[in-house]
Amino acid sequence: MKIDLNSDMGESYGAWKMGDDEALMPHITSASIACGWHAGDPAVMRATVKLAKRHGVRVGAHPGYPDLLGFGRRPMEISPGEARDYILYQIGALAAFATAEGIRLQHLKPHGGLYNVAAKDRLLSKAVVEAVAEADPTLILVGPPESELVKAGQEAGLKVAREGFGDRAYNEDGSLVSRQVPGALVTDPDAVGDRVLMMLEGKVRAITGRMIAAAVDTICLHGDTPGVAAIATRLRERLTEAGVKVVPLEEVLGGQVS
Amino acid sequence: MKIDLNSDMGESYGAWKMGDDEALMPHITSASIACGWHAGDPAVMRATVKLAKRHGVRVGAHPGYPDLLGFGRRPMEISPGEARDYILYQIGALAAFATAEGIRLQHLKPHGGLYNVAAKDRLLSKAVVEAVAEADPTLILVGPPESELVKAGQEAGLKVAREGFGDRAYNEDGSLVSRQVPGALVTDPDAVGDRVLMMLEGKVRAITGRMIAAAVDTICLHGDTPGVAAIATRLRERLTEAGVKVVPLEEVLGGQVS
Amino acid sequence: MKIDLNSDMGESYGAWKMGDDEALMPHITSASIACGWHAGDPAVMRATVKLAKRHGVRVGAHPGYPDLLGFGRRPMEISPGEARDYILYQIGALAAFATAEGIRLQHLKPHGGLYNVAAKDRLLSKAVVEAVAEADPTLILVGPPESELVKAGQEAGLKVAREGFGDRAYNEDGSLVSRQVPGALVTDPDAVGDRVLMMLEGKVRAITGRMIAAAVDTICLHGDTPGVAAIATRLRERLTEAGVKVVPLEEVLGGQVS
Amino acid sequence: MKIDLNSDMGESYGAWKMGDDEALMPHITSASIACGWHAGDPAVMRATVKLAKRHGVRVGAHPGYPDLLGFGRRPMEISPGEARDYILYQIGALAAFATAEGIRLQHLKPHGGLYNVAAKDRLLSKAVVEAVAEADPTLILVGPPESELVKAGQEAGLKVAREGFGDRAYNEDGSLVSRQVPGALVTDPDAVGDRVLMMLEGKVRAITGRMIAAAVDTICLHGDTPGVAAIATRLRERLTEAGVKVVPLEEVLGGQVS
Repeated sequence: MKIDLNSDMGESYGAWKMGDDEALMPHITSASIACGWHAGDPAVMRATVKLAKRHGVRVGAHPGYPDLLGFGRRPMEISPGEARDYILYQIGALAAFATAEGIRLQHLKPHGGLYNVAAKDRLLSKAVVEAVAEADPTLILVGPPESELVKAGQEAGLKVAREGFGDRAYNEDGSLVSRQVPGALVTDPDAVGDRVLMMLEGKVRAITGRMIAAAVDTICLHGDTPGVAAIATRLRERLTEAGVKVVPLEEVLGGQVS
Repeated sequence: MKIDLNSDMGESYGAWKMGDDEALMPHITSASIACGWHAGDPAVMRATVKLAKRHGVRVGAHPGYPDLLGFGRRPMEISPGEARDYILYQIGALAAFATAEGIRLQHLKPHGGLYNVAAKDRLLSKAVVEAVAEADPTLILVGPPESELVKAGQEAGLKVAREGFGDRAYNEDGSLVSRQVPGALVTDPDAVGDRVLMMLEGKVRAITGRMIAAAVDTICLHGDTPGVAAIATRLRERLTEAGVKVVPLEEVLGGQVS
Repeated sequence: MKIDLNSDMGESYGAWKMGDDEALMPHITSASIACGWHAGDPAVMRATVKLAKRHGVRVGAHPGYPDLLGFGRRPMEISPGEARDYILYQIGALAAFATAEGIRLQHLKPHGGLYNVAAKDRLLSKAVVEAVAEADPTLILVGPPESELVKAGQEAGLKVAREGFGDRAYNEDGSLVSRQVPGALVTDPDAVGDRVLMMLEGKVRAITGRMIAAAVDTICLHGDTPGVAAIATRLRERLTEAGVKVVPLEEVLGGQVS
Repeated sequence: MKIDLNSDMGESYGAWKMGDDEALMPHITSASIACGWHAGDPAVMRATVKLAKRHGVRVGAHPGYPDLLGFGRRPMEISPGEARDYILYQIGALAAFATAEGIRLQHLKPHGGLYNVAAKDRLLSKAVVEAVAEADPTLILVGPPESELVKAGQEAGLKVAREGFGDRAYNEDGSLVSRQVPGALVTDPDAVGDRVLMMLEGKVRAITGRMIAAAVDTICLHGDTPGVAAIATRLRERLTEAGVKVVPLEEVLGGQVS
């Protein structure tokens, strides 16, 4: 069995720092890099691509809404055509830095509000898929299991990866429990390990206690979860003990026929 | 003899329109397209690439300062590293739309303040050249004749094109006369034709009356010059009469060995 | 009887022009001025305040979403606290230009998506009201008749004005017919006059033919409606013939006890 | 003798935090608050005004260039008219939050590149002064001793305050030594104390060793200087021992006749 560990990276902006990419990068296999619209800037994008390359971590685009002030978290009623063009723009911008560093983009994962809205919105998901197909149809599209995003990617013949969250609690419908709710964050390394191993069997326990379906190809670790490096280290030990290989997303999906 | 006619295109933004790209596109051979920082947005970029393609016009990136409010015209003291990264970002973003429409970028021309400052600033010019080399070393770099920009491109082995302005008066040092000065704009179609034919012989008459060196590969027509479509039509007649072919920049430079 | 004629003004941005404020200003009594977030910039704000003052037109703030790219038209899921602070910021910025020109703000009208969403959203409307109360509780709050916005203003003891659209068709629920729908725009000057006179009697004919309630204190004229100056001229004639005085909003509401 | 201690505050933006305003606020008497252009946003502005008020700290506007990406540090060639309007806009925006919290603005200090360029540029300084005079002629203008900014304020009859930096080394011309240069930052609390006491006698030792004139009314403490709270605590002890009262700027200037 194989799994990818991914993290959102490159979320600093100008004089403002966010996250500790240096500390987390050694522990992951894929990095989703902000493209300057909700976070990130050209200098940060270059530095993050370099850092990923140095650690052999694959890179992907993490495009967001045009909302720096809201960090791309607030749903905006943009049209599918706008979404497609905004995403294509951001993929292209990041791809230039990958090219400059001699590597290629591996995947695309929408950020924040765009990810959450697309998960349930068929038209927006199709717009994301169109952007990927236009930019580079070999990119892997990352979305929640069973989501409209994953379905739209599969229908269009893209490679798709289903993402789980080891450090966040789930509602019964597969959405994440709001950070405002107690218990939303899972910070005990072994609890995270237990959850990821369950997901590798295609399920996870919702915050209500009920088991729900959650087959995943990649696990997202949040750079802002307290103790994330320790969580990542313990998670990799647990995965190794269980005979699961931690490899980049493209190797997880190696045999995927789309 | 051959010459390229270029124009700055795609300078609308969101709800705001600028220029009449539809009217001018049929008359030119290369379009320099704004990349969203000083003007342009993803929807405008896509529409402009499509429009250029429909008319067989080659496209290039026209990156600018991060100054939408000032339309990229105001010099900003950005570092060479910042300039390189800002330009690479913008090239990548535009290239994605070209890819989506099945064409390639032909050239890069810095916009506004970036063009004017780079013309005289060796370090900034080298930064522009680095961005081009990183993004795609086959792109043609466009700058003023005898400028630091052109020199930096040549030293780095890039293909370079020297740009002249048929509808603008020159100072003796080869810079453009400020739009505030009477006589700065040349709007008589035959006067424009006369000037361009002189430039094809490597010279132009400065506003002072003295002839200065100005060998050019491409002539820029400004979409906001009154009567620009009539100017373009008459200019092409004059060029044809003089046995000069109007072709895209890459054909003008066809034999260039860098 | 009295009525105010208002228009959205100051919607240019940097190098981009929008609307013909010079042409429309002589015909109106109140100007709602963009505050730099969805449109407008400091230079435009100053020029628009000056222009209004020269014509004896009262000025008000026209704040919008932080979405220049979308012209503030796209609903964004901002929190009530964010809305309150964004609006207060924009009122303050415009008020400084009014102070500089020796006049005062008369009113506040949310722009675009903010106006449309607030019309139906009680929490957002309360946020708008809080911002007005904090900035200057003597400002008149402008919103659609029967809307949550108007109700929230009344409950808080603010002066409120109900706005009608003479050049736009209505749905039966009192919302405006989308510009995409044929018949959405009313451009015949006498048809506009007929509609405004009906509104002065507290009603208007919806696009379906049914009469709906629509008591108004101010009529909005859109600068981008074709022939708006002619419409305004004819409208003022019709109002005069009917014995209706066209006066600034604060005079329309003169006797309002809140 | 009296002196004010000021600090730049409210420099967080959206999801990004900067500085530890909570920790430093108890130690200062005046806070210069970012106004959303180079840093700060409406929510941060409100929170910072509230925090200052809670500690009895006076507030002032800290306007900057329209350059969030560069944190307002990079000189931009804006015209005096643009500068005046940009500053007026920002003062107005911040003043609205002060009004909302029931306090008034005390002062204005340009930020970063705007401060540095204005210090030597007479036309830009006059533009700053015009904005202050338009917004509120009772505001105190803060600038470097002997600068064009201070001179322009004095000529226009504004109250002006001369600012010194206790934690930064000076060049002989009174400008600050670049942060890149070793020794640019003074972090030893007693060294800071020594320097401030010298400034109270109208002089300070430049990095070259030579004494230069530096009469000051307020000392700026940087929130990002390591150990700034300890520096502030020790500085206040030293000032108290020397019989110097630490009071808000308007009390320092109490008797100033302009």
